[in-house]
Amino acid sequence: MNKAVVLMSGGLDSTTVLAYAQSQGYDVVGLSFDYGQRHKIEMISSEKIANYFRIQRKVFKIDLKQIGGSALTSEINVEKGKLDRNEIPNTYVPGRNIIFLTIAGAYADILKAETVMIGVNSVDYSGYPDCRPEFIESMEKALNLGLAGSYRCKLNLVAPLQRLGKGEIVKMGIKLKAPYSLTYSCYNGNERSCGKCDSCLLRLRGFMEANEIDPIEYSEYPDFYSEYIKSRNSTNG
Amino acid sequence: MNKAVVLMSGGLDSTTVLAYAQSQGYDVVGLSFDYGQRHKIEMISSEKIANYFRIQRKVFKIDLKQIGGSALTSEINVEKGKLDRNEIPNTYVPGRNIIFLTIAGAYADILKAETVMIGVNSVDYSGYPDCRPEFIESMEKALNLGLAGSYRCKLNLVAPLQRLGKGEIVKMGIKLKAPYSLTYSCYNGNERSCGKCDSCLLRLRGFMEANEIDPIEYSEYPDFYSEYIKSRNSTNG
Repeated sequence: MNKAVVLMSGGLDSTTVLAYAQSQGYDVVGLSFDYGQRHKIEMISSEKIANYFRIQRKVFKIDLKQIGGSALTSEINVEKGKLDRNEIPNTYVPGRNIIFLTIAGAYADILKAETVMIGVNSVDYSGYPDCRPEFIESMEKALNLGLAGSYRCKLNLVAPLQRLGKGEIVKMGIKLKAPYSLTYSCYNGNERSCGKCDSCLLRLRGFMEANEIDPIEYSEYPDFYSEYIKSRNSTNG
Repeated sequence: MNKAVVLMSGGLDSTTVLAYAQSQGYDVVGLSFDYGQRHKIEMISSEKIANYFRIQRKVFKIDLKQIGGSALTSEINVEKGKLDRNEIPNTYVPGRNIIFLTIAGAYADILKAETVMIGVNSVDYSGYPDCRPEFIESMEKALNLGLAGSYRCKLNLVAPLQRLGKGEIVKMGIKLKAPYSLTYSCYNGNERSCGKCDSCLLRLRGFMEANEIDPIEYSEYPDFYSEYIKSRNSTNG
């Protein structure tokens, strides 16, 4: 059975990847990062999700506040969400996925796992440069050149959601019975998701596009999602 | 003045790189890692060296014991040194330079520095895969694709010692007045260097090749270096 290290944030995308990896027959080990994120509540979600899938989950601690420069790891406020933005938002954490993927690669090296999976996608995303396919490709190359395990076998860096829109991701996850009610995506880190940040907006639009209902609780829905719920109710009623 | 983030281990190579970077007119910021290394004494050296060069030095904490699998971060004994070995020694820390370079890149991003310098070399080295030029090249590419700062300017990953032998490095450092008496290279982490591990053997051979004397203290010299000292003394005496 092939072993895969799957990065788990407790969010929608990585939970879909977990469901996908298990459906493909991988022996999955989860890896979560306690990195000083404002939305530490996602760690509770990722623990629940690991239990749901009955997989081993490792938590790696690394304090990215030491680098600073991001709303997710400092006192800077998370800026208001915006769909279809052109600039990189202030929630960008410099080097986050590069660091996470390197640690995942090193961990795969120790476990003799041949695959690392990550839930990045570059269709409905926040514009972070480390989510782009050309980055993932170059990172796979760097890991294979820099890790001793690559002398034994190639390490595959797989991003199964890379070219899917959020609606397609939700459809895929629901088909695979991903436990979306256990997931958490909001950047603000309150128990109820804010419904306003980039992450909430992208997530809710995904459920709308998939013609599904997001099972988690929000403080407030954005207008487009309220409209969608209303129109569903009137159709059903 | 161009800013450069220089990785500082407190050892011979990174100290030579620091001296080189200053001689090239860079505004240098040092970056050291407190990563759970057995030879934590190197942190004291790198602090002294930063003071000597009057540069700002940041210490980033990351506990690589969480990954394990290396004699440098666990209870495994450091294996006896061997010059010209063919296999990767047990002091290899999976992904260490990849992680360090990523954090240096992210830090450069915040500081708006255009250059990251590292003292890796692949002539007289321990065979770690993450010291090879092809790795450094691929890592530069991954950093430039994954960091937002690269939208502003290219980040240059420079390894000025890459193709130099240890003797050439020592010659270069002495010409540049690198403070070798403050450096520390031994893997065992005792106050006096052991003179037996890979790192001590490579270092002492370097001084011998450069026809110089290593100013730091050793518990014991390896035979080749004792012979060298004897022959120098008899020539001078």
